[in-house]
Amino acid sequence: MGPGPINAHPRVLRAMSAPLVGQFDPAMTEYMNEVMAAYREVFRTANEATVLVDGTSRAGIEAALVSLIEPGDRVLVPVFGRFGLLLTEIAGRCGAEVHTIETAWGTVFDEQEIIDAIHRVRPALVALVHGDTSTTMLQPLERVGAVCRDEGVLLYADVTASLGGNAFEQDAWNVDVATAGLQKCLSGPSGSAPISLSPAAVAVLDRRRSVEAGIAAAGATVSQARIHSNYFDLAMILDYWGEQRLNHHTEAASMLYAARECAALLLEEGIDAAVERHRRHGAAMLAGLKGLGLTVFGDEAHRMNNVVAVNIPDGVEGDAVRAAMLTDFGIEIGTSFGPLHGKVWRVGVMGYNARRDAVLTTLTALDSTLRRAGFAAPADAGVAAALAVYAEEAR
Amino acid sequence: MGPGPINAHPRVLRAMSAPLVGQFDPAMTEYMNEVMAAYREVFRTANEATVLVDGTSRAGIEAALVSLIEPGDRVLVPVFGRFGLLLTEIAGRCGAEVHTIETAWGTVFDEQEIIDAIHRVRPALVALVHGDTSTTMLQPLERVGAVCRDEGVLLYADVTASLGGNAFEQDAWNVDVATAGLQKCLSGPSGSAPISLSPAAVAVLDRRRSVEAGIAAAGATVSQARIHSNYFDLAMILDYWGEQRLNHHTEAASMLYAARECAALLLEEGIDAAVERHRRHGAAMLAGLKGLGLTVFGDEAHRMNNVVAVNIPDGVEGDAVRAAMLTDFGIEIGTSFGPLHGKVWRVGVMGYNARRDAVLTTLTALDSTLRRAGFAAPADAGVAAALAVYAEEAR
Repeated sequence: MGPGPINAHPRVLRAMSAPLVGQFDPAMTEYMNEVMAAYREVFRTANEATVLVDGTSRAGIEAALVSLIEPGDRVLVPVFGRFGLLLTEIAGRCGAEVHTIETAWGTVFDEQEIIDAIHRVRPALVALVHGDTSTTMLQPLERVGAVCRDEGVLLYADVTASLGGNAFEQDAWNVDVATAGLQKCLSGPSGSAPISLSPAAVAVLDRRRSVEAGIAAAGATVSQARIHSNYFDLAMILDYWGEQRLNHHTEAASMLYAARECAALLLEEGIDAAVERHRRHGAAMLAGLKGLGLTVFGDEAHRMNNVVAVNIPDGVEGDAVRAAMLTDFGIEIGTSFGPLHGKVWRVGVMGYNARRDAVLTTLTALDSTLRRAGFAAPADAGVAAALAVYAEEAR
Repeated sequence: MGPGPINAHPRVLRAMSAPLVGQFDPAMTEYMNEVMAAYREVFRTANEATVLVDGTSRAGIEAALVSLIEPGDRVLVPVFGRFGLLLTEIAGRCGAEVHTIETAWGTVFDEQEIIDAIHRVRPALVALVHGDTSTTMLQPLERVGAVCRDEGVLLYADVTASLGGNAFEQDAWNVDVATAGLQKCLSGPSGSAPISLSPAAVAVLDRRRSVEAGIAAAGATVSQARIHSNYFDLAMILDYWGEQRLNHHTEAASMLYAARECAALLLEEGIDAAVERHRRHGAAMLAGLKGLGLTVFGDEAHRMNNVVAVNIPDGVEGDAVRAAMLTDFGIEIGTSFGPLHGKVWRVGVMGYNARRDAVLTTLTALDSTLRRAGFAAPADAGVAAALAVYAEEAR
């Protein structure tokens, strides 16, 4: 019940134990096509260029940034938590001229602030996090997307933590590139990064396309603007997933099976229903934590559905409570990073764990643990508060 | 029965369906420590810095090269196949001044040629492939390693295709950095890249270490010689696997389970026994293919144990035979890349597929398929020749 990774759905675990098939076996290429189609629905996009990067969600982020950013490009990163800082870090390593705007951790930007910064900086790319688990905040994007489209600026969004548990509309919001992972609301393991790129983003790749020596019969072709990574060269990765099937990496078949099953689960449930499930159980968890006498960290109006941060009470040792929750009840909750380390607990309600029994079990275990740590609410007040939310919603 | 990926061992498939645990759960950190210890045995090294890179074998290669190469460094790459060309490609993207020596595909270098080039080029790093599946050749390394040690040159070896099926001794041969994958002789899926780095290689990383903003309480620290990738920054990856457990990526738990089981299988069998198994079944396959009237491609004296390349006979359409093998018998065999595409077939005998039944079934299926393609050997001559090898070895 931490901020992710979380327990995978049993169907996803089972999918990973399916026998492997060769990467150019027609069965495998058909799976790849199915994955592309499924993630178009998941991202709510018509983008042909919708594939997996073989690595964790961070691999997806780096693939997007290193493939889109040429050294010297101006990149604007609005930072409202740790994962915004990560974008500045990666963009810097890609040689970008990084411009940041910042807002206090626990808040989001008024979209107009970002738009003003776009007009001031005139970046080639705006890179931001949709939902930053470090602060639990969800940044509205729609107006920013429209401005980027009108101004010819590319917009990248890291939707790792938000996708499937909060509304996200890649095409309607004019997000050029989105990357995700499986280990949050998609109920899967870390290790595969779905990505989708708009035609405008693919046009950037087309200018930077290279073909490896040893692959092309005609020898290598190298773009002047060659991408500074081979593994994350999205032009090559698209050639691998596309009709040409040009050999690149060896597809991580088991992780592809996992990604395919994650998408199947989400689409069977329906994306809107999944978002509503995360909202409902997240609201119950929020109420329950308040019922335990804890105060919520950050702007509740912009909270992600799938994770709640609460302030660690004075006099309570945060890590001891986390250790007791894990040792005594087998339940993991998180703290956060940097300035919030040891200041907040983060409780996830996501993916396979966005369930009534998981919420109530976590609350009663935390009630017991906090009581022994000397922080006592009225008996069972957490569970009662969560049950009240469920009862209210059932009416 | 292609050159990899191959069928995973059933125990590895089962391991991947184990429930996930959080990345800082003591159970998980203990698994990580077990993986480090196991791969030290697999690589035959005492290197503390022995971990997994979360991505395919190509991710391991890029992590090694981008972390070790500073722009402008001279790098010597002896090329004897497609994967040597890949090393030049990646090293070039890392900003290296790349120097190559080449030998005909199907041969290996006399080690003295590489040593002479080291003395001529004076590189910071020698990067080469141990076993290149594109040509099936296995490059001897021991004298090169000794010279690199004496001259203070780092030696990187890509052992993806060779490890576990051919002798490899990282420490005895003075190989500073080795990277692998699971999908060849280790009987696992693609998607995790074991890597081991010598103290001399770690010293390079130590000079280039950065800490992310948002992680360090004291703010970011950035090395002047910052590594041009965050995801592949091995200094950070070692801090994540080490005692500090500094957050970096979210470990791909299911792939770690797979890597752990692959190592357990190999160490239970014994590395020497596994190499001998690959030698024996590879020899039977070689004899069987000759029995079918096919001629071997390349220098038989330097063939890898685990893959055989044969010339596609005149008048036989190579891809049609491969398609028939797959459609009619469910058996995949490969062709090769670049100059060898459509000229050779590559038949793998590796990992879980290095078995008598797999060898004989492949040979009898190929006998049948070739016969219908108009290329006929005496009836059952392939299987008979392989059985003769097994009978000879059993005496």
